[in-house]
Amino acid sequence: MKISTLRLPTRTVAARQDGNTFTEISGFTDVGALLQNPDWQDLATAADGPTHDLTDTDLAPVVPRPGKIICVGVNYRQHIIEMGSEMPDHPTIFAKYAESLIGAEDDIQLPPEDSSLDWEGELAIIIGKPGRRIAEADALDHIAGYTVLNDVSMRGFQFRTMQWLQGKTWENSTPVGPAMVTPDELPADATLRTTIDGEVMQETTIDDLLFGAREIIAYLSTIFTLRPGDIIATGTPDGVGFARDPQRFLREGEVLETSIEGIGTLSNRVAAEILSTSKVPAAQGSHRTTPVMSS
Amino acid sequence: MKISTLRLPTRTVAARQDGNTFTEISGFTDVGALLQNPDWQDLATAADGPTHDLTDTDLAPVVPRPGKIICVGVNYRQHIIEMGSEMPDHPTIFAKYAESLIGAEDDIQLPPEDSSLDWEGELAIIIGKPGRRIAEADALDHIAGYTVLNDVSMRGFQFRTMQWLQGKTWENSTPVGPAMVTPDELPADATLRTTIDGEVMQETTIDDLLFGAREIIAYLSTIFTLRPGDIIATGTPDGVGFARDPQRFLREGEVLETSIEGIGTLSNRVAAEILSTSKVPAAQGSHRTTPVMSS
Repeated sequence: MKISTLRLPTRTVAARQDGNTFTEISGFTDVGALLQNPDWQDLATAADGPTHDLTDTDLAPVVPRPGKIICVGVNYRQHIIEMGSEMPDHPTIFAKYAESLIGAEDDIQLPPEDSSLDWEGELAIIIGKPGRRIAEADALDHIAGYTVLNDVSMRGFQFRTMQWLQGKTWENSTPVGPAMVTPDELPADATLRTTIDGEVMQETTIDDLLFGAREIIAYLSTIFTLRPGDIIATGTPDGVGFARDPQRFLREGEVLETSIEGIGTLSNRVAAEILSTSKVPAAQGSHRTTPVMSS
Repeated sequence: MKISTLRLPTRTVAARQDGNTFTEISGFTDVGALLQNPDWQDLATAADGPTHDLTDTDLAPVVPRPGKIICVGVNYRQHIIEMGSEMPDHPTIFAKYAESLIGAEDDIQLPPEDSSLDWEGELAIIIGKPGRRIAEADALDHIAGYTVLNDVSMRGFQFRTMQWLQGKTWENSTPVGPAMVTPDELPADATLRTTIDGEVMQETTIDDLLFGAREIIAYLSTIFTLRPGDIIATGTPDGVGFARDPQRFLREGEVLETSIEGIGTLSNRVAAEILSTSKVPAAQGSHRTTPVMSS
């Protein structure tokens, strides 16, 4: 089953995707809200609300306001070998804030403060059942499904200090979607691919992950409770712009596509942000192609 | 004005503190909910709901579910000099998740996985008015008030990898409160003090901050929108356990007190956590002295 969060003119709603048709799961504003209900899977299966055609829909971030966005770094074996690094003993983890999230076809905002905009295509886990100190053997029970996330990074700010957060959480930078698919839809060796204007930048199979879903869930839940709607980005393979020779960064007008077999494709144009001062952008979930005009 | 979030038997509520009396600000479950209303200050001033005596109250984290918890590191001049470091050009920032927060008198959970439990007493800013790319000259308008936070850190996990997050966001580790005070209540040279069982570990005045409130707000809001209820911890001075010779860490039964003149005192006992598997702790805001029993 595939479930998305649709943006309609006056609201958002969770919807089941069947072929080219989305059926509203009435009463749930988004996939995150749906997952708070332990019977979410039955509710989604039985949903028979209003329908929308795929070609007419606008997609919000699949979970617009996750309680936590947790990113795992340094997690693809081939990339670690290529970089000449040792295999790490522990996952590296860092955070993003919800302000960074955009939908599957929203523009990525290129801010005037940092031109080193880089891509990091990733498989992301969405938690469906809460738990603390989850055993690896039980970990898969806590997964509602998977989605695609591109951990777009502002390398200038990322490397200003030792802590990466300030390069990882720029407003409207991180596409997530287009859908959450239940685990049965994701092949174990699915291909993850990132392209710029059709040129392949990253291409690998997700079975090259050093710490897999079970280990990541066990590790993170040692530290804190995982809750429904939490998003865990599992790391990116080789092929990012910063590590290329010469380096390459995203430029205005380019289209970044990130796809995982069995889930779908994010397709996001890079748009230069027009500066404003002390303006508050539109509320989460409605910031498609909306540069804030100078006052 | 001082405002807290009270834990009552069946609910939480925002309340104004006058001397030894708390007056409920009816209709607002906590200080974070109150701050979503632009008229929060008038509402709090005019509140005349049920009253509670100081000695009978149980305090929740002052904002139990902030949209963002942003921590600034390496930010006290004397500490940077003492460590022989250069003054940094940019603030170091990292995150915590809301699961880490506890109230002003709650127990700090010492987990079995890491015995290097350290203290970091800090002044924290609470945002009252949203904004992006806020100019330094306007920054103070965006502050609702200040509170005390102890960025309790699990040094073992913090230094497992280059990214600190996994040592900074353990469940039920980070006291915040006891109140949010409006800016007029905080002396510019207020003393920040951290003690263990009465022994002074950290003592400095908050005017030794390298990046002050104006600069921090301008810097962070360049990256993302700051929103009402967001908490910004401004960094800790020298005197943490990890930097001592010999090193010292918090032990079971010790009481960590963190106080800032004009705001108040956090008083938190260190309690060994009893292990469970895949159990979900009680909901946020009700985890006082509640070790989860093994099943």
